Amino acid sequence: MTGQGQIDLLLKDLAIITMDPQRTFIKKGSIAIDNGVIIDLGADLDYQAKKTISVEQGVALPGLINGHMHGTLSRGICEDLKLMDWLEKICFPLDAQYTPEIIEVAEELNQLEMIMSGTTTFVDIYRHMHAAARVLERSGLRGFLTPQVIDVPKGVGETYEGNVQLYHDWHGKGNGRVNIWMGIHAPYSALPETYIKAKEFAENHGIGIHTHLCETRDEVEQCRREYNKTPVQYLHSLGVLGGKFLAAHCVHLTEADMEILAESGVTAVYNPISNMKLASGVAPVVKMRDRGIRVVLGTDSNLSNNNIDMLKEMQVAGALQKLAHMDASVLKSEEILEMATILPAQALGIDQEVGSIEKGKKADIIILDFDRPHLWPYMCNDRINNLIAHIIYSASGADVHSTIVDGKVLMENREVKTLDRKRIYEQAQEMLERLCRGAGLV
Amino acid sequence: MTGQGQIDLLLKDLAIITMDPQRTFIKKGSIAIDNGVIIDLGADLDYQAKKTISVEQGVALPGLINGHMHGTLSRGICEDLKLMDWLEKICFPLDAQYTPEIIEVAEELNQLEMIMSGTTTFVDIYRHMHAAARVLERSGLRGFLTPQVIDVPKGVGETYEGNVQLYHDWHGKGNGRVNIWMGIHAPYSALPETYIKAKEFAENHGIGIHTHLCETRDEVEQCRREYNKTPVQYLHSLGVLGGKFLAAHCVHLTEADMEILAESGVTAVYNPISNMKLASGVAPVVKMRDRGIRVVLGTDSNLSNNNIDMLKEMQVAGALQKLAHMDASVLKSEEILEMATILPAQALGIDQEVGSIEKGKKADIIILDFDRPHLWPYMCNDRINNLIAHIIYSASGADVHSTIVDGKVLMENREVKTLDRKRIYEQAQEMLERLCRGAGLV
Repeated sequence: MTGQGQIDLLLKDLAIITMDPQRTFIKKGSIAIDNGVIIDLGADLDYQAKKTISVEQGVALPGLINGHMHGTLSRGICEDLKLMDWLEKICFPLDAQYTPEIIEVAEELNQLEMIMSGTTTFVDIYRHMHAAARVLERSGLRGFLTPQVIDVPKGVGETYEGNVQLYHDWHGKGNGRVNIWMGIHAPYSALPETYIKAKEFAENHGIGIHTHLCETRDEVEQCRREYNKTPVQYLHSLGVLGGKFLAAHCVHLTEADMEILAESGVTAVYNPISNMKLASGVAPVVKMRDRGIRVVLGTDSNLSNNNIDMLKEMQVAGALQKLAHMDASVLKSEEILEMATILPAQALGIDQEVGSIEKGKKADIIILDFDRPHLWPYMCNDRINNLIAHIIYSASGADVHSTIVDGKVLMENREVKTLDRKRIYEQAQEMLERLCRGAGLV
Repeated sequence: MTGQGQIDLLLKDLAIITMDPQRTFIKKGSIAIDNGVIIDLGADLDYQAKKTISVEQGVALPGLINGHMHGTLSRGICEDLKLMDWLEKICFPLDAQYTPEIIEVAEELNQLEMIMSGTTTFVDIYRHMHAAARVLERSGLRGFLTPQVIDVPKGVGETYEGNVQLYHDWHGKGNGRVNIWMGIHAPYSALPETYIKAKEFAENHGIGIHTHLCETRDEVEQCRREYNKTPVQYLHSLGVLGGKFLAAHCVHLTEADMEILAESGVTAVYNPISNMKLASGVAPVVKMRDRGIRVVLGTDSNLSNNNIDMLKEMQVAGALQKLAHMDASVLKSEEILEMATILPAQALGIDQEVGSIEKGKKADIIILDFDRPHLWPYMCNDRINNLIAHIIYSASGADVHSTIVDGKVLMENREVKTLDRKRIYEQAQEMLERLCRGAGLV
């Protein structure tokens, strides 16, 4: 299209970490975007564009993909409790109080935070997902909404039927940005037939399943007592494991469990900060990867983290594995970046569309602004390669300058264009007070 | 002074976390500052001020104190190496290449990062500290500079004599902001007589000693082989432990070690991210605190972290202890905030001057800007108390709006007033290339 009229968007004069199969790094180049698609990239592009973004010390990378979060509103409520107290006294009573109206505000706040911290695609398992879908349609993000189906106890989660309805109402909307998967809370809270029905529905409709799996030692022991199986063996025996099965946490796994996960093609979501803060344990990420299990990164909720900043998460993701192995050489920076970009795109079945910056792919791209003392010195040297290390270990979501999804600029120079932050703060405050009063916390 | 002329500075209409002995929290109030000193604070102050700072969703707290860092320039250089490779192939060769000229730029970059992330006082152990002192004088920060005295191997560190000279040249300058302590690298790299001389000098001059202690398992074993003592027992046998002794890391301690540290009044510096990333281990922070050992927080260097952001550090500080104890209730948010404010002020002997926001104390204060989606909802409720949890678990250095030291505004609305960031970036880049060439890394 050179010289032939205007393209929609040109990202100009940036360092570009493509995450393409060759891991191409462009020291200074541009990305041409038209109709939501990357039509060209390279060092010397000559395009006229309706809009140009140029950041003096900008580094472009594929938009980050958060493999597991919950769109909750209750950040920082009653901290420093033991896990069971936290779950029973805080989470369940709060969960029961959520209404679609509260979820709509909670989702706005979460999606605002994600746009501002460089997440372009997220997997959300929580309540009243019709409300979440409405927000997703207008926020501009790409999402995989999975209702948190809970059979036991009743009333704190969503239903299988609701999940099916949500799929029919919303899947594929927003130019394909709104995706509905089956969301089954966990083996201890959902009936076996719910998993089986979900698997059948998912297969028939080409979607996947998201669930919690082996987060705590207690739930593994409970499953052993009940079924004489680990949760992984149990789900395997139901025949529900397979590709497009996204299992959050996978902290407490046996060798046999890992074999099952590897063979069935399950993707594990590593949530290091939540696993630390809730004292759940350390997921065997290096072992899983060695066995060929796809591991992707997630933040878990703002209740257990307490933010949903994938850049912060990446730092802890690496540091925690190094500590757990008492070996500072495990889990390299580039591997961590893969776990937040191309690997989750594969897990979600959208790696032909996003997860890397390549010609023909959708433009889900973020630009980091290296005009920050904590991102200097900045030496682009292939052998020393500190650019990716800077992103993993030095950056945080606040360093994101622009966030682009489907070719649309959702944030530029930290100004979010699709959501009204002041209004959201106010309503979030009001809704939290309503939630806490309802749950008897204040 | 009400109505009688103008004071220097009024911080207006902020939530104020004082960290005073009663842990007073002011939901909305102001802080009056004159001649560098907090002259008043409370809900209804009536002062005319030469300068007023008001932040709509601002939260004031005492400036953060970083108990252990090194003003290095080599962030992100050759990552993901095993500890000994990293030390021998990267750190020592780089250390040997530093000149006062390089240190001056390195210090500027580090101090710029600290101002921008809310640190107002720091303890720095590294090379060519005359250059660091010059930067400290003009940056406006409060610092404790401790030359990294190394006897073995020669040439990669500073000397005892240099440390003494530095004290005479610089201690007390900058209106008392420039403090010189004795900095002895570690029991394995400094001779016993160096510790003994340093102790004597420190006592005679009312200053303290900073050292590395029990960071890795290997160094503990080496000390046992050499002296048939743990490093703590060894230093104790030299008679050098006591108050105003700041020991970085303290990861690998025996019960007997902890007893010695408690009895002698040593302060331990907990550096969680570095200890994770370098696979050193987990400091027994809860145990130490239970035994009455004062534990404060530090970041270690930008080589091993890779940033010097105390707000990020606080999140990991809590999460790591919860994980290590498999108990999400240990180390409460407020305790972590103490470890970054009033406790290090005590350790450094400046708790009558800084470490909390109180009348008569020096004005070392930061203001966080809660106009961030990751800091909402924001419910000031005494029982739920999520404001401090937000600071520990949700905030990062990028949320600091203003940084004030000695009553002087070093940063306002993220504009640093004392250091020129663009010039520093450029020089940092140039100096890093010089360093790496010198060390044979490029």
